[in-house]
Amino acid sequence: MNQYRQTERTRVRRQPKRASYDVDSVNAIIDEALICHLATQIGGQPLIQPTIHWRDDDQLYVHGSSKNGLFKVLMEGQEASLSISLLDGIVFARSAMHHSLNYRSVTIYGKARLVTAEAERRHALDLLLEKFHEGRSREARPANEQELKATSILAFTLDEVSAKIRTGGPVDDPEDMQLPVWAGVQPVRLQRGEIEYEEGADKR
Amino acid sequence: MNQYRQTERTRVRRQPKRASYDVDSVNAIIDEALICHLATQIGGQPLIQPTIHWRDDDQLYVHGSSKNGLFKVLMEGQEASLSISLLDGIVFARSAMHHSLNYRSVTIYGKARLVTAEAERRHALDLLLEKFHEGRSREARPANEQELKATSILAFTLDEVSAKIRTGGPVDDPEDMQLPVWAGVQPVRLQRGEIEYEEGADKR
Repeated sequence: MNQYRQTERTRVRRQPKRASYDVDSVNAIIDEALICHLATQIGGQPLIQPTIHWRDDDQLYVHGSSKNGLFKVLMEGQEASLSISLLDGIVFARSAMHHSLNYRSVTIYGKARLVTAEAERRHALDLLLEKFHEGRSREARPANEQELKATSILAFTLDEVSAKIRTGGPVDDPEDMQLPVWAGVQPVRLQRGEIEYEEGADKR
Repeated sequence: MNQYRQTERTRVRRQPKRASYDVDSVNAIIDEALICHLATQIGGQPLIQPTIHWRDDDQLYVHGSSKNGLFKVLMEGQEASLSISLLDGIVFARSAMHHSLNYRSVTIYGKARLVTAEAERRHALDLLLEKFHEGRSREARPANEQELKATSILAFTLDEVSAKIRTGGPVDDPEDMQLPVWAGVQPVRLQRGEIEYEEGADKR
């Protein structure tokens, strides 16, 4: 199994038994999630923004308006941290403090690279549409010059990366196991519903 | 309608028509979401962490181990930014670049306060359990002294806050409206399933 190297920044210190540096596990979390949270700082002021992300091999992409303030800070060379989180369940324990969430999350550290080559830009945008819906990049009207110019695409190389995963039921203290309190897990999941087509738009 | 004041940090610059500073709208987003992403920085290095959050009036709470590294940075007085994001749909436009997501997000700026008074700590923890499941704070075994000691609760006053909301269908360019390309919205929603009870645990 390919593993990400552990660095001072990526080593999971709290609950290290929940950590994973396995490339396939990390990629699966990244690919399932539709949005990431992207953080940086300027002059000691932290900035955070939710944004769509997608992946091509070891490149994680985000995109936005060329006027995006956080992107401008990243283009000045500031460090970034990204978090991608999927919720899987609410964990009900017999004791208040052992209530928890089941989750799969990924943390990424690095600096952004502005994607400038037109071939990479067009390929990246195609992959974003494929993430939304398989085959979509061959259906939609491709970006024109003006649209491309108004859009910045940033790439992060997946190198300093770790995952943290909690699964399973509550972990109560042995002395609480006989308490007359129910315990268990309520699964939670991001469900995609049926597409609501626009009237007059050509349907599949 | 109560409105949050707009500050240099909270004024939404990109797509300001999607901005909201309405207290009720902001609170509804905060209360529906189970997790936030909490960011700060130390020495120019941004830190980001997903964590459970909950609210009591104008206080937003997070909690974690007293050894949590990001919490320690916040206790040194560093500024924080929090983002809370709910996904509502994938927006399929006729053109590639008008694909989008429907979402409701909140951004919060401020400094953390360590909650030290036992009454506020116990009340806050009760509210967290109520967020997981109504009535749960009266069922579960309450925190003992040792558990309370191992847990830090941080509060952020909801003051510098803004929401950003996208709703509705795709917004295509007029000249694209006749293209033979389907368009519409695929709703997405975080669904809570049926609770899977532990065997032997007292059920409701």
